[in-house]
Amino acid sequence: MKGPGHRRRRPSHQDQTGPLVSTDLSLETERSSVRVTYQGSPGTVIEAMVLNAFPNCIAAPQKRSEGALETVQSSLADKAVLTIENSSIGSFHQSYDLLLSHNLQIVQEVHMDVELCLLALPGVQKDDLQTIFSHPQDLAQCEHSLSNLGVSKKNVDHGAAGAEIISKQNLRGAGVIGSARAAELYGLNILECNFQDASPNVTRYLVLARTANIPKEYEQYKTSIVFGLEEGPGTLHKALVAFWKRDLNLTKIESRPNRGKPMRTLGTEKQFNYIFYVDFEASVAEIPAQNALKELEEIASFLRVLGCYPSTRI
Amino acid sequence: MKGPGHRRRRPSHQDQTGPLVSTDLSLETERSSVRVTYQGSPGTVIEAMVLNAFPNCIAAPQKRSEGALETVQSSLADKAVLTIENSSIGSFHQSYDLLLSHNLQIVQEVHMDVELCLLALPGVQKDDLQTIFSHPQDLAQCEHSLSNLGVSKKNVDHGAAGAEIISKQNLRGAGVIGSARAAELYGLNILECNFQDASPNVTRYLVLARTANIPKEYEQYKTSIVFGLEEGPGTLHKALVAFWKRDLNLTKIESRPNRGKPMRTLGTEKQFNYIFYVDFEASVAEIPAQNALKELEEIASFLRVLGCYPSTRI
Repeated sequence: MKGPGHRRRRPSHQDQTGPLVSTDLSLETERSSVRVTYQGSPGTVIEAMVLNAFPNCIAAPQKRSEGALETVQSSLADKAVLTIENSSIGSFHQSYDLLLSHNLQIVQEVHMDVELCLLALPGVQKDDLQTIFSHPQDLAQCEHSLSNLGVSKKNVDHGAAGAEIISKQNLRGAGVIGSARAAELYGLNILECNFQDASPNVTRYLVLARTANIPKEYEQYKTSIVFGLEEGPGTLHKALVAFWKRDLNLTKIESRPNRGKPMRTLGTEKQFNYIFYVDFEASVAEIPAQNALKELEEIASFLRVLGCYPSTRI
Repeated sequence: MKGPGHRRRRPSHQDQTGPLVSTDLSLETERSSVRVTYQGSPGTVIEAMVLNAFPNCIAAPQKRSEGALETVQSSLADKAVLTIENSSIGSFHQSYDLLLSHNLQIVQEVHMDVELCLLALPGVQKDDLQTIFSHPQDLAQCEHSLSNLGVSKKNVDHGAAGAEIISKQNLRGAGVIGSARAAELYGLNILECNFQDASPNVTRYLVLARTANIPKEYEQYKTSIVFGLEEGPGTLHKALVAFWKRDLNLTKIESRPNRGKPMRTLGTEKQFNYIFYVDFEASVAEIPAQNALKELEEIASFLRVLGCYPSTRI
């Protein structure tokens, strides 16, 4: 996975404490000792993504995503990784809320094929399994396979946590959905690879940093924004037309209730008051994108650019 | 909660086995022995919603939402209730997928204020709590309150399941987020009412049946649709303009990866291939809505009307 220009070197003191130049996304910078934080623990799928995307990084797992983002905000880490979406099960809503509640910038998007395995103690067969442990979102990716097994599902923080429970408590009637690495760490066997229902099973991760990318005009970037709208019919139309009339292609629209003011009155009824997360294929260095954002700002109750970033597939 | 014309009566054989006339949403029909199914168990929040919205129904809880929908498809029950969205935490993605994978119609939308309580064994104080049990989505609605308590969170199928565990195992260091009814059923005390972070905390439920509503033109209904689009820039714009040019107000847009074909190729890159769930404020009995759907059908790779329904708040 290493490019021809890669030099393996010991991280210097400056690498560990100096600020990250997040506009420099060259392999050299990525592969030096950038400190990357995420919600997880050894053996989780997100750890595999981090080590793959940032091979020589200092990986700093946190118990919660909020903790990961706060670590970057307070300069204790350089980048935070959030799981934003999976091709089988859709958006991770909590991550959308975290983008809004923290003042970080999306600097990169990474797509990774995720292979989930069915793990159990050595000697245990599929027929012995009564219970499967995993995170609800990993269980959801294996819903069909699990219903074929006819087992009950138990939620845990992540597959690695489930593997640890099975191993420590010597649970011979239980399996876990997790990574091959979790099997290795906790002495489990892999009963089936690619246990998820769909292949490819692609997860989209966002990399966040304190400093925004400053893209050059010719670079192919995506931009993510979030905005609210005043009440009234057709306001969402006006908002989106600002992009379409400039041929800016929207790749995703996500409606989320506004946590600050979740309800609005519509006649005699109360309805949800939404905010909108939109991704479009252009960078903020491009004049049409700047003009679209200006036009949107005039009608939006608030508007924030969450980041402008290149896309990577690993 | 009962209207003046309500008569309590024993369900007749015909009520229990005859087809439900789902176009008849009068109180009389709702309050007779309609069989309503949902994922849950006694003491869950969704059970409270079902008993409130359908006071004299035969409530038939299922272990899984798929089971609930299949029960209606096979005529063993009349209506299934799905949780689709909450004002604090957003959409329930699994429910969106279930709408597409089953051949039922949305016949009603119900908004309910949900009050979540913090429960524990009698004599246990807040300071004694180290672990809180609940469903991940209920825990998410109490995220701030929980971080103030400094406890660890354990996922269970629902609050009622957590209450049962605490009660049966006499766990004095554990609490649960659940309904007041769960406290009553499992002999727990309510340590705090309205424990969720935001008030109002409104959950939106969809009621599904085998037969679609046939609305009259003057009735104020909402319509939910799902569609896919051929690849190419601006196709989402064309799709939405079909509604806006007829002054049909879109209340919600949800992008979901297409489970059947989750990825598309964009130049040399692979990107997510989305399908779109859209809600608009009109019934399919109205000519502009019919014309908009016809226009959308011409450019969509597929289009399904998920239902046309009135909105209720309980």
